[in-house]
Amino acid sequence: MKYIGKSIHRVDGIKKVTGDLKYVDDLKMSRMLYAAVKRSPYAHAEIINIDTSKAEKLRGVKVVTTGKDFSKRVGLYLEDKTFLAVDKVRYRGEAVAAVAAETEEIAKEAVELIDVEYAELPVVANAKDGINEDASIIHPDLEEYKYAPIFFPKPGTNISNWKKIRKGDIEKGFEEADYVFDTEFFVPHIQHCPIENHSAVAQMDREGNLTVWASCQSPYAVRQALSVAFDIPLNKLRVLTPAVGGGFGGKAGTTLEGIVIPLAMKANGRPVKLTFSREDVFVNSFVRQGMYSKFKTGVKKNGKITAIKNEFIWDGGAYTEYGVNITKSAGFAAVGPYDVDNIWCDSICVYTNNPVGGPYRGFGMAEIHFGIEQNMDSIAEKLGMDPVEIRKINAQKVGGRTATNAPIDVCGLLDCIDVAVEDIDLYNKKAPSAPNRLRGKGIACGMKAPSMPNNVASSAVIKLNEDGTIHLLVSAQDIGQGSDTALTQIAAEALSVDPSKITIKTGDTDHTPYEWQTVASRITYCSGNAILNACDDMKDQLLNLASMGLGVYKRDLKLEDGYVVSTLYPEKKMAIKDLALGLSMEDGSGIHGPIIGRGSFIPPNVRNTDKDTGMGDKPVAFWTYGCQGVEIEVDVDTGNIHVLNVSSCFDVGKIINPQLIEGQLEGAIVQGLGSALMEELKLSGGKVLNPSFVDYKIPTVGDMPNMVVKFVEHPEPDGPYGARGIGEPAMIPTAPAIVNALYDAIGVRLNSIPLTPEKVLHALKEKKTIGEN
Amino acid sequence: MKYIGKSIHRVDGIKKVTGDLKYVDDLKMSRMLYAAVKRSPYAHAEIINIDTSKAEKLRGVKVVTTGKDFSKRVGLYLEDKTFLAVDKVRYRGEAVAAVAAETEEIAKEAVELIDVEYAELPVVANAKDGINEDASIIHPDLEEYKYAPIFFPKPGTNISNWKKIRKGDIEKGFEEADYVFDTEFFVPHIQHCPIENHSAVAQMDREGNLTVWASCQSPYAVRQALSVAFDIPLNKLRVLTPAVGGGFGGKAGTTLEGIVIPLAMKANGRPVKLTFSREDVFVNSFVRQGMYSKFKTGVKKNGKITAIKNEFIWDGGAYTEYGVNITKSAGFAAVGPYDVDNIWCDSICVYTNNPVGGPYRGFGMAEIHFGIEQNMDSIAEKLGMDPVEIRKINAQKVGGRTATNAPIDVCGLLDCIDVAVEDIDLYNKKAPSAPNRLRGKGIACGMKAPSMPNNVASSAVIKLNEDGTIHLLVSAQDIGQGSDTALTQIAAEALSVDPSKITIKTGDTDHTPYEWQTVASRITYCSGNAILNACDDMKDQLLNLASMGLGVYKRDLKLEDGYVVSTLYPEKKMAIKDLALGLSMEDGSGIHGPIIGRGSFIPPNVRNTDKDTGMGDKPVAFWTYGCQGVEIEVDVDTGNIHVLNVSSCFDVGKIINPQLIEGQLEGAIVQGLGSALMEELKLSGGKVLNPSFVDYKIPTVGDMPNMVVKFVEHPEPDGPYGARGIGEPAMIPTAPAIVNALYDAIGVRLNSIPLTPEKVLHALKEKKTIGEN
Repeated sequence: MKYIGKSIHRVDGIKKVTGDLKYVDDLKMSRMLYAAVKRSPYAHAEIINIDTSKAEKLRGVKVVTTGKDFSKRVGLYLEDKTFLAVDKVRYRGEAVAAVAAETEEIAKEAVELIDVEYAELPVVANAKDGINEDASIIHPDLEEYKYAPIFFPKPGTNISNWKKIRKGDIEKGFEEADYVFDTEFFVPHIQHCPIENHSAVAQMDREGNLTVWASCQSPYAVRQALSVAFDIPLNKLRVLTPAVGGGFGGKAGTTLEGIVIPLAMKANGRPVKLTFSREDVFVNSFVRQGMYSKFKTGVKKNGKITAIKNEFIWDGGAYTEYGVNITKSAGFAAVGPYDVDNIWCDSICVYTNNPVGGPYRGFGMAEIHFGIEQNMDSIAEKLGMDPVEIRKINAQKVGGRTATNAPIDVCGLLDCIDVAVEDIDLYNKKAPSAPNRLRGKGIACGMKAPSMPNNVASSAVIKLNEDGTIHLLVSAQDIGQGSDTALTQIAAEALSVDPSKITIKTGDTDHTPYEWQTVASRITYCSGNAILNACDDMKDQLLNLASMGLGVYKRDLKLEDGYVVSTLYPEKKMAIKDLALGLSMEDGSGIHGPIIGRGSFIPPNVRNTDKDTGMGDKPVAFWTYGCQGVEIEVDVDTGNIHVLNVSSCFDVGKIINPQLIEGQLEGAIVQGLGSALMEELKLSGGKVLNPSFVDYKIPTVGDMPNMVVKFVEHPEPDGPYGARGIGEPAMIPTAPAIVNALYDAIGVRLNSIPLTPEKVLHALKEKKTIGEN
Repeated sequence: MKYIGKSIHRVDGIKKVTGDLKYVDDLKMSRMLYAAVKRSPYAHAEIINIDTSKAEKLRGVKVVTTGKDFSKRVGLYLEDKTFLAVDKVRYRGEAVAAVAAETEEIAKEAVELIDVEYAELPVVANAKDGINEDASIIHPDLEEYKYAPIFFPKPGTNISNWKKIRKGDIEKGFEEADYVFDTEFFVPHIQHCPIENHSAVAQMDREGNLTVWASCQSPYAVRQALSVAFDIPLNKLRVLTPAVGGGFGGKAGTTLEGIVIPLAMKANGRPVKLTFSREDVFVNSFVRQGMYSKFKTGVKKNGKITAIKNEFIWDGGAYTEYGVNITKSAGFAAVGPYDVDNIWCDSICVYTNNPVGGPYRGFGMAEIHFGIEQNMDSIAEKLGMDPVEIRKINAQKVGGRTATNAPIDVCGLLDCIDVAVEDIDLYNKKAPSAPNRLRGKGIACGMKAPSMPNNVASSAVIKLNEDGTIHLLVSAQDIGQGSDTALTQIAAEALSVDPSKITIKTGDTDHTPYEWQTVASRITYCSGNAILNACDDMKDQLLNLASMGLGVYKRDLKLEDGYVVSTLYPEKKMAIKDLALGLSMEDGSGIHGPIIGRGSFIPPNVRNTDKDTGMGDKPVAFWTYGCQGVEIEVDVDTGNIHVLNVSSCFDVGKIINPQLIEGQLEGAIVQGLGSALMEELKLSGGKVLNPSFVDYKIPTVGDMPNMVVKFVEHPEPDGPYGARGIGEPAMIPTAPAIVNALYDAIGVRLNSIPLTPEKVLHALKEKKTIGEN
């Protein structure tokens, strides 16, 4: 292939390194107003009264709004939230009112002048408390909420989704086992920490046409949510996404856009900007849910797992419009990348009075594999087996079945294990670099599917210009992952046109065609397929016209380097630029007109699972498998863990752009490393204690390990050129591999992250493993 | 029909009346530079030297550019111009250099500091001088210029196109005649006088991507010209057209955009704005060419014309990149809307040192009909016939032939004559309103076709939104004529969706699909047809999906009020909003994906005419016919002409929006009235003596006649719902009808316009007819 598999430069690269790329907060408009948000000081309280009169009187204040103004509930999967609290606040920092004023300073001053009277309610501080029978009910009206019928909320409780997997005969499975082991694990809340803080600008004209510039991953999903919340027809609501400075899922939903719009609607045509502070991002945008998991595993002496009964209890936070789908998706990979005949899994999403859980790179998979992959190591040790061996024995393979009993057609997991194990040189332990240090190695595997409704749609429009250059219009959003570049390469290959001749246009719902969301590692696959369909549509037109023009059968024509060429007589050819506006005939007449390709895509045949058992032949479009190895060194004096080397191998089906994909992998490994070693949103009764980079640490250049990133290519039958998504998967095995390596180094298993120096020192002191029988 | 034929409000109406609509000159950008142009004080001269050093040193000057920087010749039909003069200036006011500076004042000061040394050349002051053998040759390199092969320049002369019509046997025609009459006529240069002055802003980023905001009629044509001139690939060149405040042809080409771009290319990413003063608009944008015509007409006693030999000599001005096509189009209607067997017509475009001729509402037709329609009256009088009778005898009719010998399939001319004659009450002469006044009535007919290359292309993209609303993307430009509204109605009818649910998006070459140009009264027909094709494409997808969803044959389904409905069982239906993202199946899977319609169009079977004879079966897409009647009163003391009443009837095929089309007609009549009574660019040796509204008058509210505007509907077989274009035609008969009415009132025929009071008084004094045998 000519352009697929080549490391062409990022199409937005120069703009990024020169600073020319403009982000939402860079937008300056004449007569712009600035918004500030009044936030709840309580994690759970009734709102008795909001007095905005003093704020309204402040000079320079133009609009004050509260939840009463627009109280329609919205939500992607479960309509459980309003953009401003109505009657009740459910987490500390929840927006209760907002102000638009001539300056940010005035807006902030006005917010201070808003008096809100609350009546405090009992706080649900974590998920385990939330499912207690006597827990305060956070959403008493849950019964009335609308939701997609693939979710299972339990009205009258704090459970917003109870996903069940009932595969095989769990009792029989345990009966067949030689041993049964119990383990438990915990991952805390963490935050995405995009470099760019969330920002939105909104402006409404006299006729009610609303334009929103949003730092969001999914302009069409934002448009839909806003349309419902504010009752604006979609042809009068335009969402534009300038450059987005990192998403990782945190900008997947609709958050601050819903606060800035009610202000814009009353601002007499003036634009209103709201940019979150870093504290707002930590507290008021999505966070990754905390999760408690426990496993009961039946296993034969030979290492074959006969049954797994497990439970995932998710701290969904105050609203779970998006979180319910994380818990659902977790069920599909209930036991990780292993083929287990008997599974009983409960994945439970619980309302708490913590910040709102939402999508985060990995979408539940990092959280569940944190337990699954330690559980494997733990069992292997009990059986006296090698961690690689036990994984290979139980690994999902072609011909096997997933947790939903779906047949497995393509699976490169075994290859990935071999590569990652070899690259980390697992069996060759080196001496530590200093006497006060201990070395260890560990591995972990992972699997991930795009976590999305079955019938989500993508589309693409391609315009051929008169000089043979091309405009490619899609609404996939480049959030740093490089989709603009990869999608350009897909079109380049399909049309046999150099990528430099293709300009990709995205992020404008009035102009660029529908894309469900930029999430779930789905863009290369979904948008890529829509582009290929659009290319087919364009190619069909070009070949038809060239067939007439050249007097050559269409079946004997192909696209090559900007020409339609005869496969039989290569000298018979027409430049596509000469067909861009149709076929010109000798008598001066023309045929057809401008060549426009349109393509649509829905992943084929993805179907709902059984409501009661969770079983289903094709609940997801595809699975991406991989394995990582880690080598660490532990400083026994300080408790510091140094990750020295990471090996990683994933089956991506087909590499579109090696450099980009390596970057994706390296970024994911580092994000996994951060979650393993340092990241944790410290919560106390609903309060985030560390909402800043002073107290919440993420990896920096000094923390980077040496990384060996490799891929295998078992083509995805439905993928564009066989490609499947890889944006998220590489972060899944990193944390459990590090914990497994820590066990290897110090002989102590820590079943919760982050692996802070304090915990490590404490563990070394106690020298006992936690969470084992 | 539900939406066709209804006077829905203009979709841009509220924005226009509230002033919310933004024009190019309204654009304010940060760090914007302002341009000024150094213009030639000579009509014809060699450029010996340009010294920009002083200008460059002026504080605040950022860029100075001359023609040497970008000397590539461009032109729509004939590549004869550069945007800044190179080596030679060919008209007074031609741009020789340009400056971009921090303020307009500095830019203007800098222009004064540019020293240009010229060597004057002999001036060609008018077309007749231009074709003299000893005339100074304005384009000595004409032989090297590239041009479309449908034009016939004569290198070594000042003739840039010599269009010939040789129909029948002209000598035989005159032999058959009982009488032969000679007449001659003259129309002067006039200007379009749009309310909005021409303006353009250009900005180039570090990677060479150029964005141009232009007050232009045809963003794609501008893009193409700029791409060639400045060697920028089309995928790196974006042309945006904010609101355009009147075009009338004057903004059809590429003019000031080509001056502002070389400045922007050196402005380090800063935007550069150039807005023409009214004087610039008069002198440096397009003008309507002056034209001299003479007729030799053979006619039988019964009024049947047997032969016409005529000559049109056009003053093309210094550059005729666009003007050559006006002279070509004139040939197609060489004898107006009459069926004459023997025609010998020469339509000659001549270079002069006058301002540049270009498209102007009517595109040559107003100019040639000015003679043709007086010629008819003049002959009728000689024969003692009624002007209506002679027109009916000779009128083009179904089954007849045009000047190119094309068969006539549809023609409502006779109906139009009857209506216009009745509405002006032609045979019922009323007494004047005062003793010093004379009354008269006159009629004139007209025909016009879209004057465009045969294979010009249009396209449309339609996106169906999830709530059933629609985005319609085209690049037709609403220049005041109401195309946004009419095209919305066409889509509304085709899709059976209320127009309020459709948002039309135009004027962005990166996003909105290709449209050749907004000229030639072609948009309703061309863009309308592209939209219908896009609607068909969308409908096909919707019906396919609904057929699956409803279990009903596709052939038994139709679109109705936002639903796909069974024609057999109306209760069987699906909302199109529920199909917008594809068909959702019961198992949760989906089919197809987002519904996008794409449509392209080229007028079918329009072919070149014979090179030698100009004969051709279908040289144009269609002809629009009509007739007007006029009643005037002449003040014999002042010479003032008061146009009291105008009747007008045109065959528009099908009315899309009655109110809009009436507005178009009324506007055209008033523009025709202006050209008849007051408008003239006074030229002296290449100098425009009256380039301001102080000295160049256009009609105002006090000049408005009472107008009765009617239509007949003989559907155009290829037209959308049978519609054909009507933007220009109504201005064609107005001026000759007024002159015919003047003759009726005072018994004197003035064969040139404008009919100034001075001319009328002089004629009354001389009381003799001019231009008759």
